[in-house]
Amino acid sequence: MMKNLNAKPAPRPQKWVYGFGQDLCEGDTSQRNLLGGKGANLAEMSRIELPVPPGFILSTEVCTFFYQNDSSYPDDIKFQVDAGLKHLEEEIGMLFGDGKKPLLLSVRSGARVSMPGMMDTILNIGLNDTTVAGLASFSGNERFAFDCYRRLIQMYGDVVMNVEHDHFEDIIDTYKRRNGLSLDTDINAVGWKEIVEQFKTLIQKEAGKPFPQNSQEQLWGAVNAVFNSWMTPRAITYRRINDIPEDWGTAVTVQAVVFGNMGDDCATGVAFTRNPSTGENAFYGEFLVNAQGEDVVAGIRTPLPLSDMKKTMPDVYEKLNAIRLTLEKHYTDMQDIEFTIQNKKLYMLQTRTGKRTAHAALRIAVEMVKEGLITKEDAILRIPPTSLDQMLHPTIDPKAAKTILARGLPASPGSATGTITFNPDDAEKLSADGGKVILCRTETSPEDIHGMHAAKGILTSRGGMTSHAAVVARGMGKPCVAGAGDVIIDYKAQTLQTNGKILNPGDKITIDGSTGEIILGEVNMLQPEMTEHFSTLMQWADNVRRLKIRANAETVLDAETALKFGAEGIGLCRTEHMFFDPARILHVRQMILAETKEERCAALNKIEPFQREDFIKLFRIMNGLPVTIRLLDPPLHEFLPHESGEIQELARALSLPVDKVHQRINRLHEANPMLGMRGARLGIVYPEIYETQVRAILEAALTVKKETGNTVALEIMVPLISTKKEMNILKALIDKVAASIEKTNYIAGTMIELPRAALQAGAIAETAAFFSFGTNDLTQTTFGISRDDAGSFLPDYQMRGIFASDPFASIDTDGVGELVKIAVEQGRKTRSDIKVGICGEHGGDPASILFFEKVGLDYVSCSPYRVPIARLAAAQAALLKKKS
Amino acid sequence: MMKNLNAKPAPRPQKWVYGFGQDLCEGDTSQRNLLGGKGANLAEMSRIELPVPPGFILSTEVCTFFYQNDSSYPDDIKFQVDAGLKHLEEEIGMLFGDGKKPLLLSVRSGARVSMPGMMDTILNIGLNDTTVAGLASFSGNERFAFDCYRRLIQMYGDVVMNVEHDHFEDIIDTYKRRNGLSLDTDINAVGWKEIVEQFKTLIQKEAGKPFPQNSQEQLWGAVNAVFNSWMTPRAITYRRINDIPEDWGTAVTVQAVVFGNMGDDCATGVAFTRNPSTGENAFYGEFLVNAQGEDVVAGIRTPLPLSDMKKTMPDVYEKLNAIRLTLEKHYTDMQDIEFTIQNKKLYMLQTRTGKRTAHAALRIAVEMVKEGLITKEDAILRIPPTSLDQMLHPTIDPKAAKTILARGLPASPGSATGTITFNPDDAEKLSADGGKVILCRTETSPEDIHGMHAAKGILTSRGGMTSHAAVVARGMGKPCVAGAGDVIIDYKAQTLQTNGKILNPGDKITIDGSTGEIILGEVNMLQPEMTEHFSTLMQWADNVRRLKIRANAETVLDAETALKFGAEGIGLCRTEHMFFDPARILHVRQMILAETKEERCAALNKIEPFQREDFIKLFRIMNGLPVTIRLLDPPLHEFLPHESGEIQELARALSLPVDKVHQRINRLHEANPMLGMRGARLGIVYPEIYETQVRAILEAALTVKKETGNTVALEIMVPLISTKKEMNILKALIDKVAASIEKTNYIAGTMIELPRAALQAGAIAETAAFFSFGTNDLTQTTFGISRDDAGSFLPDYQMRGIFASDPFASIDTDGVGELVKIAVEQGRKTRSDIKVGICGEHGGDPASILFFEKVGLDYVSCSPYRVPIARLAAAQAALLKKKS
Repeated sequence: MMKNLNAKPAPRPQKWVYGFGQDLCEGDTSQRNLLGGKGANLAEMSRIELPVPPGFILSTEVCTFFYQNDSSYPDDIKFQVDAGLKHLEEEIGMLFGDGKKPLLLSVRSGARVSMPGMMDTILNIGLNDTTVAGLASFSGNERFAFDCYRRLIQMYGDVVMNVEHDHFEDIIDTYKRRNGLSLDTDINAVGWKEIVEQFKTLIQKEAGKPFPQNSQEQLWGAVNAVFNSWMTPRAITYRRINDIPEDWGTAVTVQAVVFGNMGDDCATGVAFTRNPSTGENAFYGEFLVNAQGEDVVAGIRTPLPLSDMKKTMPDVYEKLNAIRLTLEKHYTDMQDIEFTIQNKKLYMLQTRTGKRTAHAALRIAVEMVKEGLITKEDAILRIPPTSLDQMLHPTIDPKAAKTILARGLPASPGSATGTITFNPDDAEKLSADGGKVILCRTETSPEDIHGMHAAKGILTSRGGMTSHAAVVARGMGKPCVAGAGDVIIDYKAQTLQTNGKILNPGDKITIDGSTGEIILGEVNMLQPEMTEHFSTLMQWADNVRRLKIRANAETVLDAETALKFGAEGIGLCRTEHMFFDPARILHVRQMILAETKEERCAALNKIEPFQREDFIKLFRIMNGLPVTIRLLDPPLHEFLPHESGEIQELARALSLPVDKVHQRINRLHEANPMLGMRGARLGIVYPEIYETQVRAILEAALTVKKETGNTVALEIMVPLISTKKEMNILKALIDKVAASIEKTNYIAGTMIELPRAALQAGAIAETAAFFSFGTNDLTQTTFGISRDDAGSFLPDYQMRGIFASDPFASIDTDGVGELVKIAVEQGRKTRSDIKVGICGEHGGDPASILFFEKVGLDYVSCSPYRVPIARLAAAQAALLKKKS
Repeated sequence: MMKNLNAKPAPRPQKWVYGFGQDLCEGDTSQRNLLGGKGANLAEMSRIELPVPPGFILSTEVCTFFYQNDSSYPDDIKFQVDAGLKHLEEEIGMLFGDGKKPLLLSVRSGARVSMPGMMDTILNIGLNDTTVAGLASFSGNERFAFDCYRRLIQMYGDVVMNVEHDHFEDIIDTYKRRNGLSLDTDINAVGWKEIVEQFKTLIQKEAGKPFPQNSQEQLWGAVNAVFNSWMTPRAITYRRINDIPEDWGTAVTVQAVVFGNMGDDCATGVAFTRNPSTGENAFYGEFLVNAQGEDVVAGIRTPLPLSDMKKTMPDVYEKLNAIRLTLEKHYTDMQDIEFTIQNKKLYMLQTRTGKRTAHAALRIAVEMVKEGLITKEDAILRIPPTSLDQMLHPTIDPKAAKTILARGLPASPGSATGTITFNPDDAEKLSADGGKVILCRTETSPEDIHGMHAAKGILTSRGGMTSHAAVVARGMGKPCVAGAGDVIIDYKAQTLQTNGKILNPGDKITIDGSTGEIILGEVNMLQPEMTEHFSTLMQWADNVRRLKIRANAETVLDAETALKFGAEGIGLCRTEHMFFDPARILHVRQMILAETKEERCAALNKIEPFQREDFIKLFRIMNGLPVTIRLLDPPLHEFLPHESGEIQELARALSLPVDKVHQRINRLHEANPMLGMRGARLGIVYPEIYETQVRAILEAALTVKKETGNTVALEIMVPLISTKKEMNILKALIDKVAASIEKTNYIAGTMIELPRAALQAGAIAETAAFFSFGTNDLTQTTFGISRDDAGSFLPDYQMRGIFASDPFASIDTDGVGELVKIAVEQGRKTRSDIKVGICGEHGGDPASILFFEKVGLDYVSCSPYRVPIARLAAAQAALLKKKS
């Protein structure tokens, strides 16, 4: 099938132009650098013998020549382009510039990577006052022909001849106003004819020369425009900021335009090779006879199902169905295709991997394994882990109509509908009465936990992906939209304002924690469902993954959920989450506000039995699986009340005057609490706090061991270590407490959550038996970014591409990841069997899990509801590592 | 002179005991591991033929044997110890356990490093009911003899026989009460005799056996006690925390006690080999005939100058003077010595490098070079750089009496006296009327600058070595005591309370910023004086240093001071310091509270001429030396008013309702401002701010170039970069502004003050032409410690040895330093000629400068007043690097 465009005698000239089509293919998908991204993809389709509209590519080497030679072209380029054109005419059976059957061309830029600031596309090259008539007559549609023509003039005038875009739009607007029309589609053939004339006049006036009627001149003008667009100031700035070398250059793709609206032997359509909703293995698509591509989408005519084509155009249908099978074989995945039939001849305009629901994705993957199309490994790699959220949480029906009020961060997946409530106490009461509530807060704090528990979903106007609201909601498996900057919550006025709307308590909203949408009223939901395909795939995943998966859990419910979803231990039990229970918070506050060690110990003695009981319950459920318990971490003032009523109550309970309580609270104030008196620092300055906790933990482990006969796999974890000496002192404290009671098993280790701890991991490992990376805090300190305050610049940073993704959601491998790598290496050098895991929010993020597999962690720990996602992501990571 | 203690036939037994004295020396200062620190030092004195009281050392190998053999000793140890004892008796001419001339011994522990938890010293071993009478008769002082005896019983009973220390003190107290005495010195011979009897009864009762009368038993009891003290729980815990291996063990030093109070041919004294106040090369000391060492210090008798000894004991004086010369030759430094003369025989009890004033240190160093004793390099290395503060600031007369009220951190050197003032406005007024004021604040903020300027010194009750008060005071060269936790400042009550005292405005205090002392009332001061010796030494230092020294300076006064002290450029000009001037602060606030870009630009346009004028003045003074200007860095809310009066004023000026202003201020609130919207983030989100600053800088440089013909060596610095992309964007911004005005020279670089920037320095250097380490912020983020909040645990951390020094005062080489090292290496790999400096507070700290020389920075930048210190420290660093 192949022939060569440049059949010239030796010395063989340099090849500048690469052709593709049905009987010619001079490139493939691997040649992005030479042919640009778009060109390489078209060549690939041609290579696997899909009937693509023929075309040719001026390679990036032409661009290099152009800039090295003062904007001129190689001598033989004209010859090569003409040869390319001739090939197009032959394949299509139309002639460029011909008055009767004019061949039309599209001209596109194509660099290795898509780049804003460059010319995109000029369509319909080849139309002029003569050929437009030809197009009108053989398409039988004059309006269509003149609409095509005016589009060419408009694009060409703007891009090639530098006539301001607005001027063209002004002419169209004036025409519509004068004729009482509102939409462009209301303009008829006469209208477009008149507008074409005005466009030509405009160009003559603004550019000082006429719109070129010569097709060749049009073509070269467009090619010139592409090459020139490589050096516009916008493109140059973009390249500088993104480190794209100037010498990459751009390619130019020239392709024939084909028409599905030239008669009843023409058609156009779209299809999926399998059903994208259910995953069923059946051809699924629609088409329209004698129509353009946009007609299928526009909805003016109702498209027909593909099964009709089998009857009306059986030959073409057979071809299309054969292509369907070819495509699935070649790409080994379900494809989304666009096609056009011009005079009975089928052209594939596009094929790409088809979008599908999570259910469909699982079914397609599992069935393709059974069909022998792909391996189990392929199937595992094909499912986006986060899509499993659709199996685990209610989701909004994609077909449902909805009024979006505002958007926030997609902080915890799933959707929920409920009435607006601003106060956690109200949320609890309304929920107890059977109401469904969305708790709306500027931000949440540990004092709001009961309200969050009662609510169906949580909405905050401040805070990021690892804000309190986000972390707690993910832990509870509840939908959360966080940091919705356009939402103004006014507690006093009891209103939620957003984009001009004012809502009051009792008004219904729906939040979508997977997209960040805040929607007015109720919306139809799809309920989660764990299918047989899901179970099959998860089993396959468990068989290949190396990383263990644990969960972050404190409560009985957390731990049970974690086990249900397949967790293999608890990687992080945050003891402070146990402090807010009403039965103990007062003692906690007494402990914090104590002025002497005696006062503090007295309060701690009251807390100890509660803590012991908490741990006993947890150890029972986990039944011998490892449990990592972190000693107290947060700044103490987080536990103190802020509202005057609560402070008065506290003062009464403590038998202290209110202003004394205020004074003590104020003394605990910190300028930057994240970097203040917390973590190991608490344990060093107030050893009695950690001593009490350690005693409660060890005694609970003893109790459960006696009860069940099984040893608790206990790991006691010290937070916020920055030096080996701190670890020495606190390890000595733990050992001292252990020595004072009955012998039991435990190991002591540390969070690695400060850059210094990572750099000094070799030394710290001399004392610590395990590391758990606290990548939330490590990200905060490595970047110097507080997750609570990042909202003021993070959107700008993501928009401008400074951060490819939120570094609190997906680990920054270059910086934070580098520290993780250093710490793992240094830690293992000191203690070859050191256990290394991660318990930050990144533990449930697939991209991060890929990195953790690469650096060889032993386990990741995440919210219970993310355990299935982590299992799948870990399997993918293991497979990808094996491949690399 | 040497003889061997263990002259036994072959096979040569292991040597366990090492002797020293006038005619024996079996060790030197290099043998710390074998002999312990104390033993090795005594051996060294013996080695250079100083007449030390003879003694012997049981080596650390004995300790190892002791623990490996169930607390028993090697067979031949008794023989070796007896030989050692015999040598002592011969040298001293007294006999151990003798009734007439009893030899007394001291027994001391001595590990490689000094270690709390171990036995220290038992004195007067050898005294019993018989020998005490001998001591009384030949010393002619019965009270002295029994005082020595009761001390032995007391120490021995406590340390060896485990009788509680308090019991002994109770007996003494009871005796004094019963006899109406108040001081121990009031007790006479009869009294001590009675107490001795009671002590013996106490021991019999508590220990169940009598105090041993046998001298040998006493000696071995004491030796046992030393070895046992190696394994006390306190010593074990200390070693675990400080990573000291158990197997190092301790040595035991046994030494003869000599007496200067046994007649008129006895004496005791202290001396310096040169004058420690002035540095004059003259023997300088005092002595007392027939006296004990403590009598010289006690002040009951007035000691005589050494010149008197020349007359009364000419032979001994000659020997002493000869020793003086020997010592200076051996140690090549001025020595502080203690000596005792027992029956005309001179014993050196101690020699150590003598403490001296900074003036004396300079004179001694410079003169010793001229005398050929040391080289210029030695002289440079010998002066502690921070001692130069005495040349640069007024200091408290060390002889002055003073009542210390409290202590804080020595935050900015020098001393000042003034009246207490709590309010910066009052400070300004009082000062304008000629008053001297100490500004006392809980902490300072940029709004207090005018008051700080007006005050003679600054005292704060909160904040650390790099708090606002500390940094600004050092920059101004004003004394500051910061973070005085015991001081409670109550603005409302207008009182300063500390340790029970209440002071009011107008009360006088003195602060010593070099020691952290807060002193009641006025204290005599020494005024600074730059001597000829100072100039000589600084010249020598400049000739050897490699590091350039720059200053952190914003004002004309800063810059002039910096130049006067020898700065070679400005390493950090903090543009925000220029924002607080009353003429512009309102525009700054307008800029911050703007809600649209237009409002913000309007305010910026008003600020721009001020900024330009500031830079013009600075460039003029610096006259071609490099000037690094940092673009706006701090969180914007630092510029906003906090008091309601000021907020009302601002509201009036902005024509906004007060609650609207409150609202806007609240919206800028951040949970952790240190990690919030600041630095480069401001420049990315509000590019107009940086554009205005860059324009003002470049136009100022152009103006000064036109004026003087000299190009300004301009370096524009972007703060708080964490990714290369940020630098790309802001470098593009700077270049764009530069392209819009007349061409001028500049380079653009960045602070490296975040761990991620250090790790990514290689990439950042592709865009940044220079790095300046902001080690204040880098320390905060690497450790996760806010300098404003560290006060709650830093004292504990230093006390427990977790931090050897405040990491904000002296760079943490293991963590923060590691990042600096990585960044320098990576940066140079990308851009071999990249200019690298440091502008954090560590730039003026000698220990840190040593590190910066090691990693090869190009310059350090510090407060103007620390420039001489940095010059000297840089010279020392260069010399030490050459040596290593």
